[in-house]
Amino acid sequence: MSTVPAYALSDWGTSRFRLWLVDGNGQVLVEKRSEDGLDASRARGFAATLESHLAGLGAPADLPVVICGMAGSRQGWVEANYVPVPADLQAILSGTVKIETILRDVRIIPGLSQSGTAPNVMRGEETQLLGAILTKNLSNGIIAMPGTHSKWVELVDGRAKSFSTYLTGELYALLASQSILRHSIGEAAAFASPDHPQFTAALRLMFSGERMLGELFGIRAAMLLDNLPPVGAASRLSGLLIGAEIAAAKARQNGKVTLVASGAMAGLYGRALEVAGLDHDFVDADEAVRKGLFVAASGIWPSEGRSK
Amino acid sequence: MSTVPAYALSDWGTSRFRLWLVDGNGQVLVEKRSEDGLDASRARGFAATLESHLAGLGAPADLPVVICGMAGSRQGWVEANYVPVPADLQAILSGTVKIETILRDVRIIPGLSQSGTAPNVMRGEETQLLGAILTKNLSNGIIAMPGTHSKWVELVDGRAKSFSTYLTGELYALLASQSILRHSIGEAAAFASPDHPQFTAALRLMFSGERMLGELFGIRAAMLLDNLPPVGAASRLSGLLIGAEIAAAKARQNGKVTLVASGAMAGLYGRALEVAGLDHDFVDADEAVRKGLFVAASGIWPSEGRSK
Repeated sequence: MSTVPAYALSDWGTSRFRLWLVDGNGQVLVEKRSEDGLDASRARGFAATLESHLAGLGAPADLPVVICGMAGSRQGWVEANYVPVPADLQAILSGTVKIETILRDVRIIPGLSQSGTAPNVMRGEETQLLGAILTKNLSNGIIAMPGTHSKWVELVDGRAKSFSTYLTGELYALLASQSILRHSIGEAAAFASPDHPQFTAALRLMFSGERMLGELFGIRAAMLLDNLPPVGAASRLSGLLIGAEIAAAKARQNGKVTLVASGAMAGLYGRALEVAGLDHDFVDADEAVRKGLFVAASGIWPSEGRSK
Repeated sequence: MSTVPAYALSDWGTSRFRLWLVDGNGQVLVEKRSEDGLDASRARGFAATLESHLAGLGAPADLPVVICGMAGSRQGWVEANYVPVPADLQAILSGTVKIETILRDVRIIPGLSQSGTAPNVMRGEETQLLGAILTKNLSNGIIAMPGTHSKWVELVDGRAKSFSTYLTGELYALLASQSILRHSIGEAAAFASPDHPQFTAALRLMFSGERMLGELFGIRAAMLLDNLPPVGAASRLSGLLIGAEIAAAKARQNGKVTLVASGAMAGLYGRALEVAGLDHDFVDADEAVRKGLFVAASGIWPSEGRSK
């Protein structure tokens, strides 16, 4: 590294671990991505896992670290209690928890919770949400964060008012690799395409009010009767699930949608929002989470950044 | 056995194998249930598997056998082509395929297929359908056959006009045992209850037009925030999925529903149809498939029943 890092930022989830060293302006100096999610880290120890990755990036021993994600859950390193909605997002920053058992200054950002008739929780997405809001200077609207458990947040006067979770990504993985549909999709699971006519047709079906549960087996039947090829099957499954998600979210929440996504997900959801006729803007998911983490870090240690 | 059997009847599916020896009136003399479904039988050989189970029940070497289910699929013993809907159910009887490679007279009943914009297939349920129709002397209405892949058939003037498939049972098993919800349900997966308030509440939610995809994660959140216990979680998941199935079917097909189900499934779907306000009648699923198989057997070999 040519520049001395100011902070280390980490998004530490159930199945993956990401770490960035940034300068005092939030510019990324180096990054590390690994499979050291919660399960892997629990066995080895959270402190040992973090220190080993920090050492691998050449981080100084006194570099402060801010973490978001499942590392702050009951099954994680130290529990960072949820902040209930409606919530000012500054509240998640003042609710960070300090790890007391180590010398290095490490803080974990709390998640958001929603109680009442539609109980819900998030961990990690609240930081991405903060980053997206700051990037686009948003006060009102809908923020959609697709993924394993897609989150849709309603923002009112700069506060997170309510949110919903859709099991879209997890259901896609289970259906494509473990259900009867695995015979139709197989290795093509990663190749669902926003440009495939099956993707668009499935979206339109979901937006017309049909229920996804009654359309899934049709993928199998279309393979048996009409030789539907694997990429078509994957695109159709993706369209049915993303379509069901957007149809449900559209019925619940109104306003301009800011889509927070990266890579293939950005392409699929962008096209789906277009077919749904939903006006939307776009923020890169990786940049959003780093921005949220950096804002947290520079709020906690305003003058301690080593490059300042 | 005190009476000489007239026929052997078998429902041979992907994961299970059932065999009954019946007399000339269709009365069951002995039965065998095993896990010798398609995958297990392919390795050992279909003829060897069948003969071993027949021998175990003391069946004579010339006892004729009629089979329904996935044994007649491309991955099965011998392919019995689908009969397309709209179909007179007598057509499936005249479409049976004889196994030519063995001495014993063994016939496989074909499935039903639906082509066009809603491609669909069934194998095994067509025989259950035939049995249910004959049991209740039905000409018109809806026949619901819940299971791994639930089938809903519209019967018009005694013919199967169209049908739908819902992946309800398969999705329940995947979500309860392999998704994030496994932490909330665990061993309680088999104990979803039609009398649990979570079952009824979930049904009402689905009948109000909500989408299942946006409600699944709420089970996890309710455990974290409100200590929802495992049986409540299982009942809620069951209510969401069965509710989504019935809501979709209700929107598509009208008429009195005949529910073809056994055991726990009969209790859950019976209660769900009641909450949906759908008038329904009931046929035992095991009896229906045996009746369909027996009608096929006595049609193919009218005077050859050994007890006649």
